[in-house]
Amino acid sequence: MEYVTSDNMRGIARSAIEEFFKHSGDPAFIPMAMGNPDPEALPEALLSELMGKVAREDMGKALSYSVGPGYTPLRDALKDRLAVQNCFEHERDELMIFSGSLQVADIACRVLCNRGDTVICEEPSFVGCVNSFRSNGAKIVGVPIEEDGVIIDRLEQALKENPNARLIYLIPNFQNPTGYTMSEEKRKAAYALAKKYGVPIFEDDPYGDLRFSGNPVPAIKTMDSDGLVIYARSFSKILAAGIRAAYASFPKELFEAMYLAKQCADIHASMLAQLLCYRFVTERDMTQHLAGMKDVYRRKAARALAELDKLPKDKISYSKPEGGLFIWLTLRENQDGGDFALRLVREKKAAVVPGSAFTANYQPSPSFRITFSALSEEQITRGIEAIGQLL
Amino acid sequence: MEYVTSDNMRGIARSAIEEFFKHSGDPAFIPMAMGNPDPEALPEALLSELMGKVAREDMGKALSYSVGPGYTPLRDALKDRLAVQNCFEHERDELMIFSGSLQVADIACRVLCNRGDTVICEEPSFVGCVNSFRSNGAKIVGVPIEEDGVIIDRLEQALKENPNARLIYLIPNFQNPTGYTMSEEKRKAAYALAKKYGVPIFEDDPYGDLRFSGNPVPAIKTMDSDGLVIYARSFSKILAAGIRAAYASFPKELFEAMYLAKQCADIHASMLAQLLCYRFVTERDMTQHLAGMKDVYRRKAARALAELDKLPKDKISYSKPEGGLFIWLTLRENQDGGDFALRLVREKKAAVVPGSAFTANYQPSPSFRITFSALSEEQITRGIEAIGQLL
Repeated sequence: MEYVTSDNMRGIARSAIEEFFKHSGDPAFIPMAMGNPDPEALPEALLSELMGKVAREDMGKALSYSVGPGYTPLRDALKDRLAVQNCFEHERDELMIFSGSLQVADIACRVLCNRGDTVICEEPSFVGCVNSFRSNGAKIVGVPIEEDGVIIDRLEQALKENPNARLIYLIPNFQNPTGYTMSEEKRKAAYALAKKYGVPIFEDDPYGDLRFSGNPVPAIKTMDSDGLVIYARSFSKILAAGIRAAYASFPKELFEAMYLAKQCADIHASMLAQLLCYRFVTERDMTQHLAGMKDVYRRKAARALAELDKLPKDKISYSKPEGGLFIWLTLRENQDGGDFALRLVREKKAAVVPGSAFTANYQPSPSFRITFSALSEEQITRGIEAIGQLL
Repeated sequence: MEYVTSDNMRGIARSAIEEFFKHSGDPAFIPMAMGNPDPEALPEALLSELMGKVAREDMGKALSYSVGPGYTPLRDALKDRLAVQNCFEHERDELMIFSGSLQVADIACRVLCNRGDTVICEEPSFVGCVNSFRSNGAKIVGVPIEEDGVIIDRLEQALKENPNARLIYLIPNFQNPTGYTMSEEKRKAAYALAKKYGVPIFEDDPYGDLRFSGNPVPAIKTMDSDGLVIYARSFSKILAAGIRAAYASFPKELFEAMYLAKQCADIHASMLAQLLCYRFVTERDMTQHLAGMKDVYRRKAARALAELDKLPKDKISYSKPEGGLFIWLTLRENQDGGDFALRLVREKKAAVVPGSAFTANYQPSPSFRITFSALSEEQITRGIEAIGQLL
């Protein structure tokens, strides 16, 4: 029969990342597209050891259904962890486990948005969450981001022009795709606007644990005296992306609806992932583990930035991330990042993600994203040299 | 701040099952409410052994993101398995892995329904999927079910009266909550109606592997010459419910949209669950494994039916399932199943689920559901005796 897909799903295209991911199995390609963590930083041996314990001791807990908000001992451990960082307050917040932080976006939007309501996003932003909002019927309004975060005047303008805005989506630390970090002043200003217009913030912080230089900036959630912030953290970049596990701290008032929406999505997150994360959080020295990861990314980012420094400054500029996995490159003279990315794949066997993939309506963009996380230093050099040759 | 939840989420109440689940930790309670598989039939030892292998050999595959449709070797193995059962045709169908079969319902609805569109469900039906449809904005229209399946005239009437119907949700084998099995004639008739009105069927078959008596009836999917059936199978009842893993075979035309919607939901199912399922499917003798499970359920169902036979026939009637986990009890003289369920909890410490929880609009119902799956035979006897004492 002829199928007609829903209005919400129409207009959602395949992620350009996925398109470039096709080449990731080909060893000839330099895989600068996918935001995968470094296998060196996330050793298989650690996962095997922890999972072996789960397999030997905890499997009874995976036999039956569990509860929607997540495995209680894991929730408690994460509440403690976030409380220390002032991102969870027992009086104010609840914490739930999700099947990855993209699911937090999906469920928050299901809970807060009617079809046609607006979600305000940084532009560029993480296309996965933006598509998730779209698939819930939300209209996407992009607000330009610069090196110290979203442009505050433009954010206020978007809030004024869209009285049906229901959510502000921000990635304040080492943003995807730009690598930019929002300044403390801008975080305060964005929070004040959220309060003024009564629009909650979804603060997505998957990379916050991976600051390898500069000084930490407090999460917006730490300022949340009015219960306006849904704050998501993930195990994807610090343990393993393929297990699909994340958690979010949010105002208690939202608990019932978030809980019910989670039940409507997949009942609860896989107990295998939850049991593994519980052992990771409670049995590992997290500070030491993260220090090791940061060493790896610091070294790789330094290599990438050193190579980028050799490129002709009149032809390209690039962001200088203090953490995370991404660097954002922008061509001068209004060239198209999409054309450049295609030429890189075809002529140089180097995969990057064109900037248009991260814009609210797939507008052309002179930029593209590279990752250094899962590449060897030799690959980083070869990849950036390839970019230089094409310029 | 004051939160207003979306129109789609309003009206979704906590599952009555969850309410009665609260007592499941209390050993004094007879837990006839939750549809958990029997831990005896799903031995922890099997899970530990398979998971141990995954932990030792496969964890590298869990480090990074995987692809949306699922782990390819698992998809291939399941395609083969369903092809043998005529529920997958390489020419016609695609197969994807999901985070439980409730997620198939959620994603199918996201792909096919606009807000206000109708999903036709059996009444009573599995409240989890029904809520999932609701949370996508669907209007629920219930069609009464009897011992040999949905009433076909009423199904046609519902299709006629609701030209915006986009999905027919059926559980043909050992239905939840009734335990009823749809006859082959009715399956053919339902398929013919789906074709006549151009409305696809979501055939949910989590219990099909657990027939312990009577003769198998072909799945509706086996009749799908027109590409009208989304057919979902689950690992929840045959391996472990807490791992959240299921799969669905559906017409190729839907693949792109199902794939994109899955990406918007949680990117892909947890690799831990997928790797475990792959070992289960390829390394175990499934026929032998299922035979062992069926022996357990056959014995328990026989005990339950023998105990039910002792109850006064003028006061209560009950279904006689040939498989699955559920028996549906109906009080005579228009008594309310909800009141009875509450009295059972309070006076007899026995938890069942009131029938109203499974109706399209939480209408009062003279029925309630019991499960025999996770109870000992002694608990089954005590539970049904408690029901008899209250009658």
